[in-house]
Amino acid sequence: MPDRQRRLADVSEGALLAELFPLLRGGPALPVGPGDDAAVLTTGPSTVATTDSMVRGRDWLDEWSGPGDVAVKLLTQNLADVAAMGARPTAVLLSVVADPQAPADWVVEFARVLGERARSSGPQGVAVAGGDLSSAPTGVLVLSMTALGDLEGRPPVLRSGARPGDVVAVCGTLGLSGAGLALLEAGADPHGRPPGIRTSCLEHHLRPTAPLAEGPRAAEAGATSMIDLSDGLLRDGHRVAEASGVRLALEAGALEPHVRSLAGAVGDDAALECVLAGGEEHSLLATFPGEPPEGWAAIGLVETGGGVTLDGAPQQPRGWDHFAS
Amino acid sequence: MPDRQRRLADVSEGALLAELFPLLRGGPALPVGPGDDAAVLTTGPSTVATTDSMVRGRDWLDEWSGPGDVAVKLLTQNLADVAAMGARPTAVLLSVVADPQAPADWVVEFARVLGERARSSGPQGVAVAGGDLSSAPTGVLVLSMTALGDLEGRPPVLRSGARPGDVVAVCGTLGLSGAGLALLEAGADPHGRPPGIRTSCLEHHLRPTAPLAEGPRAAEAGATSMIDLSDGLLRDGHRVAEASGVRLALEAGALEPHVRSLAGAVGDDAALECVLAGGEEHSLLATFPGEPPEGWAAIGLVETGGGVTLDGAPQQPRGWDHFAS
Repeated sequence: MPDRQRRLADVSEGALLAELFPLLRGGPALPVGPGDDAAVLTTGPSTVATTDSMVRGRDWLDEWSGPGDVAVKLLTQNLADVAAMGARPTAVLLSVVADPQAPADWVVEFARVLGERARSSGPQGVAVAGGDLSSAPTGVLVLSMTALGDLEGRPPVLRSGARPGDVVAVCGTLGLSGAGLALLEAGADPHGRPPGIRTSCLEHHLRPTAPLAEGPRAAEAGATSMIDLSDGLLRDGHRVAEASGVRLALEAGALEPHVRSLAGAVGDDAALECVLAGGEEHSLLATFPGEPPEGWAAIGLVETGGGVTLDGAPQQPRGWDHFAS
Repeated sequence: MPDRQRRLADVSEGALLAELFPLLRGGPALPVGPGDDAAVLTTGPSTVATTDSMVRGRDWLDEWSGPGDVAVKLLTQNLADVAAMGARPTAVLLSVVADPQAPADWVVEFARVLGERARSSGPQGVAVAGGDLSSAPTGVLVLSMTALGDLEGRPPVLRSGARPGDVVAVCGTLGLSGAGLALLEAGADPHGRPPGIRTSCLEHHLRPTAPLAEGPRAAEAGATSMIDLSDGLLRDGHRVAEASGVRLALEAGALEPHVRSLAGAVGDDAALECVLAGGEEHSLLATFPGEPPEGWAAIGLVETGGGVTLDGAPQQPRGWDHFAS
């Protein structure tokens, strides 16, 4: 990057905040927005809250992901957790911990896309209610987000409510993000976007979307359990199975269309692995006492027992562990 | 540190979370605690939300601050922002971004003290409603917190409501944290605690307390503006003056007891500077249309004009800017 590029250290905190605030404005109206000691939000009787972070070099690589990509991914992974409780996402708060030598324009573009995407997220848009800027050691960039949501009077949908006889269903794609990651690792150009499944995989990995409105819809349709697929169908399926004290019996035939559509991008074997264990998909997995609502695809049944099976064969949880060596 | 010490990388994320959860439990009951996609909190019609981070090597030094000190400071600075809106702090969410080679016991002790202090914070205790663990580059430890509060039906107390004729008042200490920092920089032993003002300064710098219950009390008493003193009386006073379009006319005589009590620790000149510009005090500054309530000390008057004066002499804002070089 050219040396005359504006660095965070060249801008006072006040000037930077003055530049960022207008980019982050919009979404549902807040009684008090960012800028005071705290923001004020209008809330229902039950508020859902979750937090998730992204670290440069660990959760994204600058060679693959620009500031807008990182904004979309951070927002999606937080809001999907809110939706997976059956809540409507309402607001996020953001903490940016950055090397003062980082380009100021990275942060500005990050904020621009974050604001834009937040305003159009979920059934009624999401407000950026607060933020914090701190300086970090050389090369470090850590982005932490907290997301809040409104249950709108509904009880939350937990991981622990699946009951034998329920239908296991998924809303959204499976394996696209994992396949996109495999393509990037194999040298695919993150900016080359010819139409086709390879591009869909790259796009979903770099700028994932989540079916946010489907979380509240599933809750209204009587979902007994729900989880955001962030660590892979098997690992997240195991979480539901364990929390509910049941077995999720998945049917390979129901996953076949997902596998087939990915095979053209990564080959047959990798396609199955992406569908079963690919992370960062942010689709929703839920169980229903009967037919799942429109837009949801049945992929198995809840049985007595434990763990996850595929056509009856027990499956080990596979996926990401943040600190294991 | 001995090499056989347990590192984060030696523990699976699941095992670490299982160790941390019981330490963080307690405080106000949550309908759903940490462990699902998100926590569920019982909320009033208006929720206050704020976020603040601490970075190892920037916001604390391991030579001076242990994990419990960092836990108390992070909690206090977040909860003071909630109280400064006139809200009762209810819950926090925490993001830990750590080098996998960091000692696991640092994180465990941090969580133990955080849970203990949260349970006893504010009028009704504070719940740790959620958390996230991510791995960071070598040597990096970033802690980001979001704090939530309940306005209990009161309107929020903003920085912008001070009106000419109001009384300027402070609740809590002034300059202790700044003096504590000066003592540490001059080589004081952070663990040597003979009784006296020097120890009070060190303790308030390392483990600050904030008058959390006084935020809601001030709101009930009709406070027209309020702010948490995190960046110094002058800088934060300027923020109130600017947001309200008024002048804060401070009286040196009213600050004199604070200066005198610090003089024994850091000398006369430094004592005045600590009272005026010392950061991280987390006392509350507010304006009232008449006499401030008990426990608050009047330190000046609101006048027409702008800025902050001391016995009529204009004072420049002085304090901390995170990115200025």
